[in-house]
Amino acid sequence: MNYRMIFYMVGRLLQLEAALLLLPAVVCVVYGDGGLAAMLISAGVALLVGTGLTLLRRPKNHTIYAKEGFIIVALSWVALSLVGALPFVLSGEIPRFVDAFFETVSGFTTTGSSVVTDLGRMGETLGMSHGVLFWRSFTHWIGGMGVLVLMMALSPSQSGRTIHVMRAEVPGPIVGKLVPRLRDTAKILYLLYLVLTVVEVLCLLVAGMPLFDSLIHTFGTAGTGGFGMYSTSIGEYNAACQWIITVFMWLFGVNFNIYYLLLIRSFRSAFTNRELWAYFGITVAAIGAVSLNVALAGDYATVGETVRHAAFQASSIITTTGYATTDFNLWPMFAKCVLVLLMFIGASAGSTGGGLKVSRVMLVGKAVGRELKRLVHPRSVGVIRLEGKRVEEPVVQSATAYVALYFLLFGAAFLLLCLEPLFDLESNFTAVAACINNIGPGLGAVGPTGSFADYSALSKVVLSFAMLLGRLEIYPLVLALMPGTWTKR
Amino acid sequence: MNYRMIFYMVGRLLQLEAALLLLPAVVCVVYGDGGLAAMLISAGVALLVGTGLTLLRRPKNHTIYAKEGFIIVALSWVALSLVGALPFVLSGEIPRFVDAFFETVSGFTTTGSSVVTDLGRMGETLGMSHGVLFWRSFTHWIGGMGVLVLMMALSPSQSGRTIHVMRAEVPGPIVGKLVPRLRDTAKILYLLYLVLTVVEVLCLLVAGMPLFDSLIHTFGTAGTGGFGMYSTSIGEYNAACQWIITVFMWLFGVNFNIYYLLLIRSFRSAFTNRELWAYFGITVAAIGAVSLNVALAGDYATVGETVRHAAFQASSIITTTGYATTDFNLWPMFAKCVLVLLMFIGASAGSTGGGLKVSRVMLVGKAVGRELKRLVHPRSVGVIRLEGKRVEEPVVQSATAYVALYFLLFGAAFLLLCLEPLFDLESNFTAVAACINNIGPGLGAVGPTGSFADYSALSKVVLSFAMLLGRLEIYPLVLALMPGTWTKR
Repeated sequence: MNYRMIFYMVGRLLQLEAALLLLPAVVCVVYGDGGLAAMLISAGVALLVGTGLTLLRRPKNHTIYAKEGFIIVALSWVALSLVGALPFVLSGEIPRFVDAFFETVSGFTTTGSSVVTDLGRMGETLGMSHGVLFWRSFTHWIGGMGVLVLMMALSPSQSGRTIHVMRAEVPGPIVGKLVPRLRDTAKILYLLYLVLTVVEVLCLLVAGMPLFDSLIHTFGTAGTGGFGMYSTSIGEYNAACQWIITVFMWLFGVNFNIYYLLLIRSFRSAFTNRELWAYFGITVAAIGAVSLNVALAGDYATVGETVRHAAFQASSIITTTGYATTDFNLWPMFAKCVLVLLMFIGASAGSTGGGLKVSRVMLVGKAVGRELKRLVHPRSVGVIRLEGKRVEEPVVQSATAYVALYFLLFGAAFLLLCLEPLFDLESNFTAVAACINNIGPGLGAVGPTGSFADYSALSKVVLSFAMLLGRLEIYPLVLALMPGTWTKR
Repeated sequence: MNYRMIFYMVGRLLQLEAALLLLPAVVCVVYGDGGLAAMLISAGVALLVGTGLTLLRRPKNHTIYAKEGFIIVALSWVALSLVGALPFVLSGEIPRFVDAFFETVSGFTTTGSSVVTDLGRMGETLGMSHGVLFWRSFTHWIGGMGVLVLMMALSPSQSGRTIHVMRAEVPGPIVGKLVPRLRDTAKILYLLYLVLTVVEVLCLLVAGMPLFDSLIHTFGTAGTGGFGMYSTSIGEYNAACQWIITVFMWLFGVNFNIYYLLLIRSFRSAFTNRELWAYFGITVAAIGAVSLNVALAGDYATVGETVRHAAFQASSIITTTGYATTDFNLWPMFAKCVLVLLMFIGASAGSTGGGLKVSRVMLVGKAVGRELKRLVHPRSVGVIRLEGKRVEEPVVQSATAYVALYFLLFGAAFLLLCLEPLFDLESNFTAVAACINNIGPGLGAVGPTGSFADYSALSKVVLSFAMLLGRLEIYPLVLALMPGTWTKR
């Protein structure tokens, strides 16, 4: 195990976080409603600890194997969240550390589950100072595309096999490079991310949303996070803003490789992508089913309004963003059940969204299909293809093992949460589903108008862990906790 | 596809059912409280249809391939349930056919979910006539070890590859023969089953349970079914009876191969069986966790009573029997959650119990472990062993594909059930879990004191299908419904 390199990478990452904390510090200065000292102290701590780690034990060689890749990602995200929680505590806006940690993990993992009970409504005083609110949403943007990917994009050309770090941080069953050099791949990804972000901000401004609100909600959309400014989430804004966010949530749930293919004018490859069409098909089917069910229940005045809310919620849940335009906890059972199932499918691989990922579900579906075929024709060969390419057996095994481990950890987290005497099965089940899939709100007590504030400290730690499991796709954290990983070979 | 052989086998099975229906007919005569005509007419119908099917198209060759094996099992169980529902309808004790079908499927699949809303309590008039009540519980006993296995045990030596029928009907990831000849294996299994059944009846009689009650509850225990005589299930009987049923439920959840090993004095092989120990360990851990949680809640007067109820419920749920000594729906959340997780694990392979089966969970766990090992050491070989033997890759793939398909179908059934406007998420979720795992009662509206009566006809059909999926381990039914199975190769 290359401990020196692990410390070094985590150290560099904290230095980067120090730099990133300066952006909300600027917001504090602009609005002057507090939080500046908290931001600067936090940045100072990040810089100090980070620099300490890089200087303490300079790495002799920069080689990173798969094992180190997972450990670096796991430790980086935990360190990032521990330091990222400081502004909330120091500003006094979320005084308890465990709450602030939960909120920060929820931010970086782009979950959007919150312990803040009442953010107020438009026109009232903001529930938090501008700077802290900005940091809270900015964590979504940082975590969405991956903070280590950002570090790779920014740092000078690196030796070592950083592909292992990228593989461990970018979601999906198969992670490849867009271009031969990894640093260039990271740069392209962040450039696309930045462009889409700017376009959304502009669209929202045109639709009449104020600048600060546009930034907050674009961060939440881009990272498919879901932190907003008001208790009523996006329900405060006009239909145009809601439609814009619906479309952009969906776009940020697309595999970024598709955008790269469009960029290099490889339209044919982009539009024949199976995962893209499956993702599109599931979204449209869900919008149809929810619209019909909600329309029959007669919750809204017009068909247009029904479809708008249905489309927004379906897009918000499948991309694992978690924004809401209405309290879908009050919808009929069938519509809620469709949303719960969408939670598990999740967005595309290589997007900023969470969940099992469409392509992984497809892969497992194909493994099931192969099994059915083999039962009827025992001597059939059964090669699995995805996107026209043959998928090697270890990748299929990895995907099915992933799904199994996912449900196992889901059950464990659910069991621990059930130690809470206060909550019912619906709340606990959807709380775990919302956290492990990085959605945000669940149903019942943790529905769009509820919060996670009343859970105990233990439950908050369990749910924070579930969020990290979901965002990092299980393996880094599990490997970091397995004693076997740390023993010498 | 050997259609003639399929018709022939289904026909023979219905003839067998006609014979089996004579036993409750005898009970009708003994007690004289009705149902005799219903039994005899049903037996007549079974005989007529069965003989018609066997005569109509005599098979030219008796060869059965894997495909035919699955189809025979799927069609047999549906035909068995359609005819088996007649006594309930004809006696007028469950007048609607869809309800009677649900009850019969629930019986044969050893689920124990009931549409009967009130069976009354001890000392009151019985909720049903003795004969019909006997048939209802007898279906558990028939379905537990497998009705086609029974047919094999009874019929004269057969040509053809009936191993495919047995593989499709006996639960578990790996099904083997105990002795070279399949018919002898079937005979040994039924002999062991019969001996255990007789021993339980004797134990219950000694503990003070009346003969009729002992038969009813032994059928329910042996098949791990759960149909009882009273609304309060086993709560009506003394502590000794409850402990006897606790132990026997657990014993019927053990792989019957173990009993065969004991019979041939191969004690070493029997007691080093990994699945047996895992099954034992999970049961003890669950009893401990539930006892502690329930004791802290202070629901019962003494420690003995607490442990008795905890042990009974844990044994009842892990073996997927579904009997109750107390309304566990009123237990604290954690205890209920432990029971819900036990529902999914289920009993041992090759037992009469349902669920995913302990050995399949172990196999999938090993596949996950191999994946974790491979992430750290990419070049490791990763051979999976179970019970000391190397498990071939297709078996591992089959087990993981099974778990994936299981959760997929679970989600689909849950979605369809959520079309019901009346029930909450907890009731719907545990209704599906209780049916697909062949348990019986769930939580909420379908808890131990509730019933499935208020679900719509559509939901009852969906749940009946879920019960068959669970008992037959998915593949037979799914293959029977796939158009590709029916087209010529």
